Order: sequence, then structure tokens, then C-alpha cells
Amino acid sequence: MHSFQLVSREHKKDDTIIQLGTCNIGGRSTLIMAGPCAVENQEMMLELAPVLRNMGVNVLRGGAFKPRTSPYSFQGLGEDGLKILSDAGRSVGMPVITELMDARHCDLVSQYADIIQIGSRNMQNFTLLREVGQVNKPVLLKRGLSATIEEWLQAAEYILAEGNHRVILCERGIRTFEPFTRNTLDVAAVAAVKNLSHLPVIADPSHATGRKELIAPTSYAALAAGADGLMIEVHPDPANALSDGKQSLMPEELAVILKNIRKAKIA
Amino acid sequence: MHSFQLVSREHKKDDTIIQLGTCNIGGRSTLIMAGPCAVENQEMMLELAPVLRNMGVNVLRGGAFKPRTSPYSFQGLGEDGLKILSDAGRSVGMPVITELMDARHCDLVSQYADIIQIGSRNMQNFTLLREVGQVNKPVLLKRGLSATIEEWLQAAEYILAEGNHRVILCERGIRTFEPFTRNTLDVAAVAAVKNLSHLPVIADPSHATGRKELIAPTSYAALAAGADGLMIEVHPDPANALSDGKQSLMPEELAVILKNIRKAKIA
Amino acid sequence: MHSFQLVSREHKKDDTIIQLGTCNIGGRSTLIMAGPCAVENQEMMLELAPVLRNMGVNVLRGGAFKPRTSPYSFQGLGEDGLKILSDAGRSVGMPVITELMDARHCDLVSQYADIIQIGSRNMQNFTLLREVGQVNKPVLLKRGLSATIEEWLQAAEYILAEGNHRVILCERGIRTFEPFTRNTLDVAAVAAVKNLSHLPVIADPSHATGRKELIAPTSYAALAAGADGLMIEVHPDPANALSDGKQSLMPEELAVILKNIRKAKIA
Amino acid sequence: MHSFQLVSREHKKDDTIIQLGTCNIGGRSTLIMAGPCAVENQEMMLELAPVLRNMGVNVLRGGAFKPRTSPYSFQGLGEDGLKILSDAGRSVGMPVITELMDARHCDLVSQYADIIQIGSRNMQNFTLLREVGQVNKPVLLKRGLSATIEEWLQAAEYILAEGNHRVILCERGIRTFEPFTRNTLDVAAVAAVKNLSHLPVIADPSHATGRKELIAPTSYAALAAGADGLMIEVHPDPANALSDGKQSLMPEELAVILKNIRKAKIA
Repeated sequence: MHSFQLVSREHKKDDTIIQLGTCNIGGRSTLIMAGPCAVENQEMMLELAPVLRNMGVNVLRGGAFKPRTSPYSFQGLGEDGLKILSDAGRSVGMPVITELMDARHCDLVSQYADIIQIGSRNMQNFTLLREVGQVNKPVLLKRGLSATIEEWLQAAEYILAEGNHRVILCERGIRTFEPFTRNTLDVAAVAAVKNLSHLPVIADPSHATGRKELIAPTSYAALAAGADGLMIEVHPDPANALSDGKQSLMPEELAVILKNIRKAKIA
Repeated sequence: MHSFQLVSREHKKDDTIIQLGTCNIGGRSTLIMAGPCAVENQEMMLELAPVLRNMGVNVLRGGAFKPRTSPYSFQGLGEDGLKILSDAGRSVGMPVITELMDARHCDLVSQYADIIQIGSRNMQNFTLLREVGQVNKPVLLKRGLSATIEEWLQAAEYILAEGNHRVILCERGIRTFEPFTRNTLDVAAVAAVKNLSHLPVIADPSHATGRKELIAPTSYAALAAGADGLMIEVHPDPANALSDGKQSLMPEELAVILKNIRKAKIA
Repeated sequence: MHSFQLVSREHKKDDTIIQLGTCNIGGRSTLIMAGPCAVENQEMMLELAPVLRNMGVNVLRGGAFKPRTSPYSFQGLGEDGLKILSDAGRSVGMPVITELMDARHCDLVSQYADIIQIGSRNMQNFTLLREVGQVNKPVLLKRGLSATIEEWLQAAEYILAEGNHRVILCERGIRTFEPFTRNTLDVAAVAAVKNLSHLPVIADPSHATGRKELIAPTSYAALAAGADGLMIEVHPDPANALSDGKQSLMPEELAVILKNIRKAKIA
Repeated sequence: MHSFQLVSREHKKDDTIIQLGTCNIGGRSTLIMAGPCAVENQEMMLELAPVLRNMGVNVLRGGAFKPRTSPYSFQGLGEDGLKILSDAGRSVGMPVITELMDARHCDLVSQYADIIQIGSRNMQNFTLLREVGQVNKPVLLKRGLSATIEEWLQAAEYILAEGNHRVILCERGIRTFEPFTRNTLDVAAVAAVKNLSHLPVIADPSHATGRKELIAPTSYAALAAGADGLMIEVHPDPANALSDGKQSLMPEELAVILKNIRKAKIA
């Protein structure tokens, strides 16, 4: 199990804490990232950003380059989406996170994003891992759909080995036989990775469950298991979202979850 | 999804609460069941019972008939084990739970047990389900290793259809590709079943993770997701346990978890 | 891996060959078992038996006690079904196989069946395994939905350890994430078990795939991997079958497969 | 299931047959690709190529860019490896196949390779898929470890949608709970994809099983299920291979398999 080095607790005893503007990722903080699956247009993002900011969301998310199973599905707005996201974040002083899919877009995405996301399908895209290992931005590394804990940490090792030590791990559900949920949130993996590694770990209950009504309980569960934060999909009008509508919360639904988190001091 | 009837929320809106001596299972209570994987001898049980009682454990567990992968592994003490367990429970006023594997032992086990456990390997042993459906004792039904939520609820339906409505569901991890943990605790299933059914649901982090160091965080996670209780393996000397030593806590380790649960009001 | 004993190649170098009337199971023969999922009525069985016999089917199958996910689904005709099946087999001189679900029915089923089937849900029903270990009839042991090869062989070991060495293993697909097929036929497991054990191994492409159009190619594949035979669901009118209609072949469709097997000498 | 278009049988009734020098891929031919996991040095490749050619191997494989779980494992010889592979192929008139991992290497790899391989980890690396969709070379698309049949065909659709219709699908085992084999060869998927699509499909029993002794039976099984060919790892000295030694055959072992295939006319 211990062929990884830089990511391990043996290598570094203390929790890695990543500072990002006024927020800390890791340590004793609970970081909330939220936003729509895809950046769809400017109005939506400019309206959503202050709403999320006011309820305590720390980082604004939104996809500009979307990995889609079918080549005929909406693929994102590209650079226009990056600009809209970045403008929306800046308008309220929130850092933004967005996914990088193509190593050749690394400079472009780095200009707009405060955190670069590597999606689950690319967890073992070693080209991409090496590329973001050379960038001076924190990287969120999602666990692959069928990646073992060992493989996930090895993927993070690729990034650290290139010199970028600001990696945030994100458990987003693994693929199992259960059809009721989109994937299976592996809370034990959150706890295991906190033991094995010093890196911060967050959970993505939206992709893990794929069902609105399960996002609240799995959010509480992930934090109770030791997660350093959550990434949650929010859309002002889920029924008309261009992607992932079924699993998107409305802003007021997220607000209830965040209140419960603070009240119960789960985190 | 809704071919089950008696177990469904549509059929019965309110949570089923099962009274057992002074404890309630379901509703707003958090039930803790603990004890060794197998009843090994009388001294051990008589010593362990008051220790567990004093730290707030509600139900004493211990296997007398053990389902073992190999026919050459320790198979349990049989009726002697039932007596020892029952005596230990009575000595401190704790109800006891033990597993029934053979429909022909149903009367025997019912004489000694306050709750009858159906193990995960027998979740679709319909003979056994029908048999405990006719018994006047609560039944704990563990989810099968690769049972869908739908199949798990259908298995419970078998018991209710025979007239026994006092069924407790127990999520104990599903089998996935991940080798680091023994199984994968499915906290979303806990939350999903609480929505779909009125029956109480508990979690078994010992079998779900198979690793001592992960029992605390997954216990908190299960309760945060809405579980009505926990079942945890405890052994005074895990290194010498006849079965499941690797995943057994020492009593003092369980005490820490129970204190945290009360303090954090996770439950 | 080698905690099993009696089932292992180390224990017994030569293939176990089970004689059953005029057919051999194991060794160089290819055994074909076919028939409906459930015995539905006498006419159907009496008509079907000679048809199957004439196309070279060796053993007639039919369920009298059906393990069904829901308690409200058709559960089989019970003893009436056993009689019908047995009569149909005798009318054409074919041995019959049927499933035993309840240890208390062991004598009853043994009176009618030439081979006793243990279904996948009961692969680790150790009560049942011990019971059929004491019967003087060959036993077909289906692999559990999520049973490892090791667990499957250990389950067989339970039967041999009781004295019954006439065990036939049956690979019937394992549960995976793939939704297109009902299960995933594990042909490598067929080959692996032929190496690890001296017991005959057959495959059940009907349950493995759940789709009519995939039964022929997976039948050929299982035999090419070394399977000693096949078990295939056949129904004269699949659209109106009381269970498993979607995966049942019509007799003439099975005839084509059997002709191809002989022609290609795949087996 | 039918959101894919260009890859579907509805779109194109006849089997796609890809001509490559004197061999046909698809249709009634059985294509054999073989060679080492990684190109390790020139001597090895120049010695191995004529040996494989003489036993009837059609395409020489060898990795120059290796996707490795750990950043500290051997990563391949890069462009030097491409040259060595290409020279070895040319020395005996065999086309060569090698993996492309980085879209920026597409031109480079295309100069040396006759078939471009997309590995299982990159099955949903849509950047890479689009890139090889614009290249005038056949592409071998391996199924992802946990990709459904639907997702696999959608990934192929990405390539065809860019204009490259010469795509070969490769089933190489899916990730399941079974630890005995490295992965689980899904022969039903081979048959299913032959029904759903006109594209040729081959199988890779080396990665599917990860065990030398299972390569022969699973090769026969894949062909019996309808596969248009096989890709098999061969190394002159498996014990000292830089990667995948445990699953590599020696050339003489492959020769036996190829003889059996021709003799049994399985293909």
C-alpha cells in the first residue's frame, strides 16, 4: 500500500492547509464549494454568486469544459464560460474552481481559475496530472469511478512529484452494482485517506448520489467522517439545467444544509 | 421500485418504533448494540456485559451459530453459546441479539434471544425470512453483500408479510472493487431506506470497514446520515479473538466513540 | 487461497466424473440441462420433455420451489411441481434437476430429483449445504451473485466435508456495474475453477446474461473456456412465462445452439 | 441505449472491415496482435518480431509511453521506443500498434504506429478521442475499467464523429469484486457490441485475467463469443519484464494457443 511518498502521512505528519484568499482548505475549516454543473450564461452566474456568497459558500464552481459521455451533449461554453465564471467570482470576492480536461488548455484555465479541477474520468490521465503539477494553483483531484484508494493517492503523487503540493482530494462516489443512487459515496475512503495522507479531502454528494433528497444526509455523513469540505451542485432552476439537473439543489435548499452543518457542529 | 408494500412509507407514514425493555429502536433514539463476534466462553461474556452496560450500550450481541466461509473454521458454541449470552445479558438487565442461521433452530434461538439477527448471507434465505416472520420477537435484517436497496426492502417485506412488523434493517457494507476496506459502507442507502420505509435502520461499521481505525469515523457518518443506531464488535482481547479480531474494538475504544457521539450530538 | 481441501486438485488429481443414468458429467462430455424456469403445469412439461430429449438435452430442469425477490411473486407449485417434473422426465427417460431452498424439504426433493440444485442466493446457506452433503444425490452448486472463486469452492467444501463428493459447480454470472446484461458471465472463473478443483463446472448463460440474443455466444464461450456443460432456460411460450420469460429460449432456438456446438466441436 | 449514432448497426448494417497491409480486421478474419507490454530495448524487439511473425501474429504491439499507476514506475522509452517498435515491425513486414497517452504526441505517434491504441484509463479522455478522430490511422479503443457498454460505444462515437471511422474496440476486462483475476473478462459484452455496432471487436485476455494460465481458455472463449481477434502480451523473459511480467506469455506458449485456435476453428 505504501508505494506513494510525498502524499503520505509518513512523509508529512501535519495536515496540509491550503490558503485561498480568506479561506483555509484543510485543518479545522469546513470548505463549501457550490455552483452549477455548467456555466450556462452570464446572468445566471452573476445572480447566483452573491446568493451563494451570502449563505457562506466559500468557492464558486462552474464547468466551462464539460466531459460528456456523448459527443452530441452540451460540451460547455469554453473560454467564454471561464470568463463568465471568473467575473462572477470577482464580483463578490469569491475564488472560483473549474475543470481542466485538456493539457493544452492548462495556461488558459489557470488564468481564470483559482483552483483547477481534475475530473474523475481524468484521474489517471497522467499527462494532465503532470501538467497541473507544474502550475502554481491548487488542484482538486476527484477520485476515479473505479479507482482504489491506493490508485487515487498515486494519482495525487504524480502532481506532488512535479512540484505542486497544493492538492485537494475529492471523494465523489464509486461505481457499484446499486442502481438506486448514481454512485456509492465511500465515507470510509474519506476517513482512510485522512489517515494515510496529509492532504485535505472533500466530498461531492451531488455526483455521489445523483439524487437531490440524499444530498443533505450524505453531506452530514461525509463531514462526520472527517471530510474538510463539500462540493455541491446548485442551480437556480434545476428542471431546466443543461446538465445534471436531477441532482442539483436550488440555492435555498443548500442554505438549509449549511445552516444545519453550523448548528449541529458536525464539521 | 415500489413493488414492496408493508415496509413502505406510503403504507405507514410514521417511523416504526420498537420497544425493547427500556430502550426504543427507531424514532429519536440512538441504539447501540455491542459485543464479541462470537460467544467464546462464559467468563468473557460475564465480564464484558457490565462493562458495556456501564458505558451505555443498549443491547448485547454475540454469535452462537456462526456463518463461516470455511467448514473448518470455528462454527460457534451452539446452544451453549445461546445460554451464555442470555445469562450475561440477564446479569445486567440487557437484552441480547444473536444470529439465526437454520429455520429449524428458530424456536431454540427465540427462547434465548431478545432480537433475532438474520445475517447478510441469509438476506435472501426466504425460508428463514418466513420463519422469523412468524415469531414474536424483533428481527434485525442485515443487507446482503450485493443486495440492492430494492432487494433488501423486499426481503423485509417477506417478514412483515408473515405478520412480524418489528423489523430493524442493518446496513453492513456492500461488496465493491475496493480492497482497502472489507466492504464499502453505503451511507446513502441508510438515508434512502429512511425515506422509502418506516422501519428503523442501523449500521454495522465493524463489518463494513473491517478495520479498527475506521470504525469511529464511519459510526459518526452513519448516524449523521440518519441511522437509528449502531452495531459494533467489541472484544476484550482482539488479538486472540476466535473470529473477526482485526475489526474488533476493545471496550475502552468503544467508550470513546460513545462519548463523542453524545458530546457532538451527532445522533 | 488454498484453505479448501477436498475440492482441490491437490487432493484429487483426476477430474471427478459423475455418472447419471447414461450421461457423464465432467471429463470429456458436454452436458446440457434445459427446461423452464418454473414448472407451470403438467401439459407443458409433458410436451416439452420429448422435444428437449430429441434435440440432445441430457437433463430436464424445472423449478418447483422458486426463490423470488418479492413475496408476492409466483413462488412455484411446490410438491405438485416436483411430481410433474419427475413424471415428465420419466416419460422420456431423462434425469431431472430442481432447486432445494429449505433444508426441511430435503427428503421430499430428494424423492423426485436426480440432481439437487442449490441456487445462487443460498450458496452460503450453510445449513442447506450441510444437509445436501448428507444426501446420496449429485448436487449442483450455483455461484453466488457476489461470491469470490475462493468462497464458491469453500461452499462446495461444506458439501464434500459431509460426505457427498458428487458436486457440480455452476457459474451463472456475477453482479457488476454493467446494466446491459442481468449479470456478468465470468468465463475466467470457469477456467480457474477447472484448474483449482477436480469438480465438474457448467455455465448458465440464461441467468448470466438475462438476454435471449446473448445466450448462444456466451454458451459457446463457456464451453471454449472449458465448461463441462450448460444449463439453459427454455419455454414453449416465453412471452407468457410466469418467470424469466425475457431470458428464455424457445425449443427451436436451443436446437440451433446445440447443433452449432456439435458442428464446431467447441466442446 | 441508442443515443449513439455512427457506431450503431442501425446506421451501418455491414461489418466494418479495416484493411491493414495484408490483414483484415473484422469480417471473417481473426486478427492476432502480440508483443511485450513495453518496448524495453532494440535487441529484444528485433529478435521477437520474426518469431511472432512466423507463428502467425498479424500486428506487433509494444508500449513506448506507458500509463503507470505510480509516477516512480518505468514510464516507457518515449520516442526511442516508437522507433525501435517501428523498425522491428518493418524488419519483418508487420504493422505495429502502440499507445497514445498525450494529445500533443499525436503527430509523433502517428509517424511510427500503424494502429493507435487508446488505453482503458483514457477511454473517456475526450481530448484524446477527438484528436485521434482526426488522424488517418486505425484506432484501437480499449474499454475502460468500469465503463458500461453504452459509455464504451459513446467513446467510439467521439472518434467517428470527428471523421475517423476505422475504430477497433477492445474488451480487456472490467473491474469487479473478484480478487483472483486482475479483472473480469466480459465475453457477453463482446457479443453485445457485435450486435449493437458494426465495428470490429477484439479481446485482451492478458489484462483481463492477469494470469498466464488463464490466457489460453479466455482467448478461446472470446473468439467463441464472436471476437474478431486477440491482443496478447508476449515477452521472451517474463520473469525479468519491466512491466506486466506475471501475465506475459513466452513466445512458444503463444504458439500453442494459435495452433489450437486454427485447429479447433474456434474463430
